[in-house]
Amino acid sequence: MKNSLKNEVIDFLKQEFPQSLEKCEIEEISSKGATIIYQVDSKDLRPGNTVSGPTMMTIADYALYIAILGEIGIVGLAVTTNLSINFLNKPSPSQNIRAVCKLMKVGKVLIVGDVWLYSIDCDEPIAHAVGTYSIPPKKS
Amino acid sequence: MKNSLKNEVIDFLKQEFPQSLEKCEIEEISSKGATIIYQVDSKDLRPGNTVSGPTMMTIADYALYIAILGEIGIVGLAVTTNLSINFLNKPSPSQNIRAVCKLMKVGKVLIVGDVWLYSIDCDEPIAHAVGTYSIPPKKS
Amino acid sequence: MKNSLKNEVIDFLKQEFPQSLEKCEIEEISSKGATIIYQVDSKDLRPGNTVSGPTMMTIADYALYIAILGEIGIVGLAVTTNLSINFLNKPSPSQNIRAVCKLMKVGKVLIVGDVWLYSIDCDEPIAHAVGTYSIPPKKS
Amino acid sequence: MKNSLKNEVIDFLKQEFPQSLEKCEIEEISSKGATIIYQVDSKDLRPGNTVSGPTMMTIADYALYIAILGEIGIVGLAVTTNLSINFLNKPSPSQNIRAVCKLMKVGKVLIVGDVWLYSIDCDEPIAHAVGTYSIPPKKS
Repeated sequence: MKNSLKNEVIDFLKQEFPQSLEKCEIEEISSKGATIIYQVDSKDLRPGNTVSGPTMMTIADYALYIAILGEIGIVGLAVTTNLSINFLNKPSPSQNIRAVCKLMKVGKVLIVGDVWLYSIDCDEPIAHAVGTYSIPPKKS
Repeated sequence: MKNSLKNEVIDFLKQEFPQSLEKCEIEEISSKGATIIYQVDSKDLRPGNTVSGPTMMTIADYALYIAILGEIGIVGLAVTTNLSINFLNKPSPSQNIRAVCKLMKVGKVLIVGDVWLYSIDCDEPIAHAVGTYSIPPKKS
Repeated sequence: MKNSLKNEVIDFLKQEFPQSLEKCEIEEISSKGATIIYQVDSKDLRPGNTVSGPTMMTIADYALYIAILGEIGIVGLAVTTNLSINFLNKPSPSQNIRAVCKLMKVGKVLIVGDVWLYSIDCDEPIAHAVGTYSIPPKKS
Repeated sequence: MKNSLKNEVIDFLKQEFPQSLEKCEIEEISSKGATIIYQVDSKDLRPGNTVSGPTMMTIADYALYIAILGEIGIVGLAVTTNLSINFLNKPSPSQNIRAVCKLMKVGKVLIVGDVWLYSIDCDEPIAHAVGTYSIPPKKS
């Protein structure tokens, strides 16, 4: 069932937001959570031979978006209202990044979740983000 | 003098971080501040015909980085430790974005600044970010 | 007119939230903003002879609350959904603290504002906070 | 061993920061973590019959401080540089609050941790905070 949900989310993204899938693979959509894998390439690097902060923010925001689509269904117009990220350890420039998102609150208006990011060869997190999405009211 | 600083920063970026200049123009480097212009294109958009959150985070982080380079000189290894952003108003999908950064604290170890983002045809901000960079100790 | 608004806010606080006024004085309520003065005493200090972080968070949150009451009227049930604060310079343990709040977005559901805190004898800010309040829907 | 550490932390707080212990009890200091219990009383409430945001921020900051003292030893001058909190569910006005802190990064200069807050009769968290402390350099 969650697997069909995953396919439904992917179909939606293919149609509405195709560029988001170029470098991201949805690994899992679970109850109030999602895991994605992001392919790091040279465009993501910055001086110091490390993955740039904005790349990590992009991954975190996307993981949150996927978890929300998985939780409340296809709501294209959900928008981020706030995102806060702490960078913890230097990412490996040659490893892809796994993002593990869990939703901590699913309200009618606001959804809050956090995301842990990992270089996939390492157990220590490279970043931790907390974000809030605003859900548009349903039209009746 | 600040103009030559601007050229010095651009030369550094051209060499070390060339992809950052593809869509960003440094408009001004002032005392404890910087203004940049980001060229929005279709890759920056997301469902709802608006500029994506990650694009705005990227711009905010970059403006902060430029202001820091302008303030303390070419320190390639300064890294973001924390960034928090609030999205305020829907950006225009067809307008470039101006980012105005001011540094609120320039310490020996940490530099904190905020960034206001605007669609350049509008006075209302589209987002506000606060970020912290960590400055590596100088080698003696 | 704004003066009568200030009195209206103070009357509301006296009735519903009297302990909040024990150490805070509302200096000004302006359009989309407010300034308050907080009386620092020994209970606010922490090791290192400085004002504690929680005291500064309390002041920031309160200034935001006052600015919101001033902007949208007496809405007792407005609640903070998110607050982020950066501590910038060491506060003076013997000086009161001024908090200057400006609202950056006044939406129907969410209000976002920032607050600068100062030891009143010094122009350099001691902290900067950004907070979001959620406004309950009006009953019809 | 951790138990003697807990006593050492309590002795330090009694001497340097006694007011912090009036309403807080340290339940546990674990490896890279701490749990504290905060006694809610009428002074902590705000309109809407709920625990105030600043009270929750105070608890979160304190739990982080205890976890840091437990991890790196008695460092009185560690100071918060940044704290971000999301309020998730309405706290019970008649229940004490448990705060569970885990450190996510213990660096030489910065320590980052998160804190979950719970009304002790309920499994759903009432708030989640992420904070950064700056550690002063050791004198040699």
